[in-house]
Amino acid sequence: MPTHTFEPTHYHHTLGTHPPVLRIAPGDTVQTTCVDAAGQDRDMRPVTPRGNPMTGPFYIEGAEVGDTLVVRLEKLRPNRRRGWSGVVLAANVVDPEDVPRLAQAQGAQRWLDWDVDLEKQTARLASPVRGLEGLELPLEPMLGCFGVAPSRGEAISTATSGPHGGNMDYRGFKEGVTVYFPVGVEGALFFLGDGHALQGDGEIAGTGIEISMDVQFSVDLIKGQAIRWPRGEDAEHIFTVGNARPLDQCVQHATSEMLRWLTGPYGLDIQSASQLMGQCVRYDLGNIFDPAYTMVCKMPKKLLERLGPT
Amino acid sequence: MPTHTFEPTHYHHTLGTHPPVLRIAPGDTVQTTCVDAAGQDRDMRPVTPRGNPMTGPFYIEGAEVGDTLVVRLEKLRPNRRRGWSGVVLAANVVDPEDVPRLAQAQGAQRWLDWDVDLEKQTARLASPVRGLEGLELPLEPMLGCFGVAPSRGEAISTATSGPHGGNMDYRGFKEGVTVYFPVGVEGALFFLGDGHALQGDGEIAGTGIEISMDVQFSVDLIKGQAIRWPRGEDAEHIFTVGNARPLDQCVQHATSEMLRWLTGPYGLDIQSASQLMGQCVRYDLGNIFDPAYTMVCKMPKKLLERLGPT
Amino acid sequence: MPTHTFEPTHYHHTLGTHPPVLRIAPGDTVQTTCVDAAGQDRDMRPVTPRGNPMTGPFYIEGAEVGDTLVVRLEKLRPNRRRGWSGVVLAANVVDPEDVPRLAQAQGAQRWLDWDVDLEKQTARLASPVRGLEGLELPLEPMLGCFGVAPSRGEAISTATSGPHGGNMDYRGFKEGVTVYFPVGVEGALFFLGDGHALQGDGEIAGTGIEISMDVQFSVDLIKGQAIRWPRGEDAEHIFTVGNARPLDQCVQHATSEMLRWLTGPYGLDIQSASQLMGQCVRYDLGNIFDPAYTMVCKMPKKLLERLGPT
Amino acid sequence: MPTHTFEPTHYHHTLGTHPPVLRIAPGDTVQTTCVDAAGQDRDMRPVTPRGNPMTGPFYIEGAEVGDTLVVRLEKLRPNRRRGWSGVVLAANVVDPEDVPRLAQAQGAQRWLDWDVDLEKQTARLASPVRGLEGLELPLEPMLGCFGVAPSRGEAISTATSGPHGGNMDYRGFKEGVTVYFPVGVEGALFFLGDGHALQGDGEIAGTGIEISMDVQFSVDLIKGQAIRWPRGEDAEHIFTVGNARPLDQCVQHATSEMLRWLTGPYGLDIQSASQLMGQCVRYDLGNIFDPAYTMVCKMPKKLLERLGPT
Repeated sequence: MPTHTFEPTHYHHTLGTHPPVLRIAPGDTVQTTCVDAAGQDRDMRPVTPRGNPMTGPFYIEGAEVGDTLVVRLEKLRPNRRRGWSGVVLAANVVDPEDVPRLAQAQGAQRWLDWDVDLEKQTARLASPVRGLEGLELPLEPMLGCFGVAPSRGEAISTATSGPHGGNMDYRGFKEGVTVYFPVGVEGALFFLGDGHALQGDGEIAGTGIEISMDVQFSVDLIKGQAIRWPRGEDAEHIFTVGNARPLDQCVQHATSEMLRWLTGPYGLDIQSASQLMGQCVRYDLGNIFDPAYTMVCKMPKKLLERLGPT
Repeated sequence: MPTHTFEPTHYHHTLGTHPPVLRIAPGDTVQTTCVDAAGQDRDMRPVTPRGNPMTGPFYIEGAEVGDTLVVRLEKLRPNRRRGWSGVVLAANVVDPEDVPRLAQAQGAQRWLDWDVDLEKQTARLASPVRGLEGLELPLEPMLGCFGVAPSRGEAISTATSGPHGGNMDYRGFKEGVTVYFPVGVEGALFFLGDGHALQGDGEIAGTGIEISMDVQFSVDLIKGQAIRWPRGEDAEHIFTVGNARPLDQCVQHATSEMLRWLTGPYGLDIQSASQLMGQCVRYDLGNIFDPAYTMVCKMPKKLLERLGPT
Repeated sequence: MPTHTFEPTHYHHTLGTHPPVLRIAPGDTVQTTCVDAAGQDRDMRPVTPRGNPMTGPFYIEGAEVGDTLVVRLEKLRPNRRRGWSGVVLAANVVDPEDVPRLAQAQGAQRWLDWDVDLEKQTARLASPVRGLEGLELPLEPMLGCFGVAPSRGEAISTATSGPHGGNMDYRGFKEGVTVYFPVGVEGALFFLGDGHALQGDGEIAGTGIEISMDVQFSVDLIKGQAIRWPRGEDAEHIFTVGNARPLDQCVQHATSEMLRWLTGPYGLDIQSASQLMGQCVRYDLGNIFDPAYTMVCKMPKKLLERLGPT
Repeated sequence: MPTHTFEPTHYHHTLGTHPPVLRIAPGDTVQTTCVDAAGQDRDMRPVTPRGNPMTGPFYIEGAEVGDTLVVRLEKLRPNRRRGWSGVVLAANVVDPEDVPRLAQAQGAQRWLDWDVDLEKQTARLASPVRGLEGLELPLEPMLGCFGVAPSRGEAISTATSGPHGGNMDYRGFKEGVTVYFPVGVEGALFFLGDGHALQGDGEIAGTGIEISMDVQFSVDLIKGQAIRWPRGEDAEHIFTVGNARPLDQCVQHATSEMLRWLTGPYGLDIQSASQLMGQCVRYDLGNIFDPAYTMVCKMPKKLLERLGPT
């Protein structure tokens, strides 16, 4: 299968029906890069306005509305030695009474810098804050924002998320994961960006450790399979992603999508799927910071091995 | 330290200021039992009405409002070979449009039975549903509902939860965990029940695998330390628990409580705690079925080792 | 029908199964008083701790679980010339980013005083704040918190609300209204308090103009009619009350209760009730400040005149 | 001031930066039409796909990002004798347990027809459902969906709403109202559609009585005044509009916007605005059916007369 190399020259701040930068076929691999959430490239140069600028869109030949786009994140490699993060927790993740304390602690500084050691694959605060002098965290590189053009002509800000993907900030979107998106427009139009060297659940400081990345991904198509919400798969789990507010609704979307998955290709009926999910499901929190929040519903693959898809 | 053996003769369906069944001292251990959520004992006899009947309350000598009760769950052992679970997913955890499908699949049967193998520590459906014929799940025994009497004279149904604990249905409340509750009344008045042989996140079928249990716990007191929400600690994490609706608010309570913990005994300031939490926090889902939902905020202990408490 | 006069000597801070202060029969009228939310009586004396102290409970002869208690608020008369209110808006009713502005404006003062003119039936700020020098507001006296003992042994704080009523802070609970509560315990056990001289929707400053009151109410019973949520009726509307969080769930409870009312005693089927509600319903906001919020679903009585109850 | 007559030939299903159909100046008046939510014109011909097709956009000369667009709805006149509405209540406005009842009552029919009497200004069900035989409702024509192009290149579906307006379904958007929108793109780009002959609060059946309309509106600009959420004004109130989920967040947006209005042009400080809002505010419910819900915060104009704007 061909491998394309693509170096972006412009970026998008919405996921929408923008002119493709590259046309690729199912099975193809792409090597490219993305800037950080503030539009800074590998040399910390601001090459585009801030706000999760996207590389792409990539047009996948043969993708039509009602298909499923398959994206495999083959390599996610931070490509510089400087990351940054928000200074204090976001106002919406603490009790309202605690917001003034956060505001006082914010100070003049908007961001804290992190030194990223690409050899050791760790991150340290560039100017350690009190009490965290020796803190060294292992990298877990991931994409905060990626997805496809939404259906019906919408162009959705990269600040938020929806059935098309977008700014989900889920730690599970790391190297090796396979992600499924509902194709909403001809060619699917795949976008990616918002690299995080690592991130806590919820992205509760409003950022991960934000960084530019070298990215390699491959694509495939499942023709005629319509899904409603992003799905994914890694070595241990299949998972579904609900993007909405409040979190309760994220859970509803992700749970309904898992129910459709298990009662569709996996061939369970409602009672069987309910037993399996009721006693074995796991949920992860994506972000609880953006306009739409994200919850992920996971099922261990080993429980599904005997079930299908057939 | 003394070990008490207590066999319950009556049960409570609220956590409130009920007459103590036993008075114990900080440091003491108690061996007791609890019935299942339907009020059935080790012999499947219905000994009390359904709805999370509680064993207790246990009066802890010296506990006063403003203290913290420490409970260590030393042993949680299912004591019979039969469990049961809800037949289909709960109506509130799927998209509203999917509720009729669940209702149709419910059928006449309210519950499914599980065979619990106490030697192998596994559970199997007693009459396997289609597609799950070979399913065998490892036990992860836990308490669904436990806690203390709420403050200010409230008596809260064991169907729900709050700052006093209650029906949190969190998988992390298993053998070996230490849990901290805010003391709301003199003597704290500790209750426990609602054994689960195992359970998926969210308790989304409305039950875990419900079972009676032999329970051993010990108690301690932290005098003069007032906490607002339950806290806990296992081998790998410290954690805080928020009980409310919607889940967003659970996250706010648990996050604010973690912030208080890290900026209190652990001695971080707001900025330091924000960095640590922002990049390293994990969230777990307790139940998303009861009147109040539950989210848990976790911090790895190894990150805190150098920090304190001093 | 007899009229009882009852002067309270103690108060309750939960709605629960407390010893009755008076036993009355269906059809009886009671003249009594309530202190303000801070426990201050008509002479501004603090006679009980703050937090919506309740007068009662009144035991209604013949009331059994599964009946409906009918309460008519015949007179609600502020009985002193001083009211008070919160200084700034509550933290949870504004965008999280605006909370620090409110905190700064709070100042040292916890409350503002209002002069209540009982002849003119108006209220004015005792020390006008800048820009509101001439503000004079017409009184609309109402009860913020009232209801019955909850079922199943619960005792619920007067800070919050539920199916039993409680702290709903709805402007529609004023003189002349008839309110229906589900009887949860034998005798129903009716409580009342938390007088407001007037209040905006939502009680968004955390208080109305808080005041003690002379109250006259009468009671009746509807035997064998079980309702799930409080209902009410005034000259123009019938209405149902949902108490929960988030507001979406209040709307669900109130709407489902109205659907039950219209498809029950009023004899409509689901389609008819849907048309009438879909095109004619009105919603009011009770409080959006307490642990449980309140939304009210209203139907104009003139649309129902031809329908029943028959 | 000039009056333009514009007859649409195509429609949009997103509010976005689409090519203007007409350029008008501040002060101008436009006479135009809109189709109904299903894309049917005055002759019930389907002239465009369903889903709130929009007439426009109208480009307002001189409008720049950071200005406020003023739109006065001068005439809203249903222009045919047939309307239609959803058959049963929406699944998300009732308790989850009640959804199956609604699904059963839905039947094969998707919509019910209404006869609209343009002389009497009333609506009657074309084929009365049982119990509603004599029902005749007065028209209250309103626009369900209108607004401006969002900022930052977004194109938002007319199924939902946001700071730019959109599908708010608020009964207050009727003839005579003045509405203010934040200008997000050059020329503002104003759209309108989704006529309702009348509607209950919440649009809880998923529709009002849907109908095509003749519309006359005029526009103006407030240069250099940036607002965050739509605002409005009628004979009795000023109001602000919050569009989000859950309703709690709508209330937060609308309340914060009202606070900005009162502490901005009206010159109050936080304490004064808090008193006025706390004791005098009213909230209305727009829709609780779309992806984003709508709540409206209102202040009586007579209370503001002495205050400004100065």
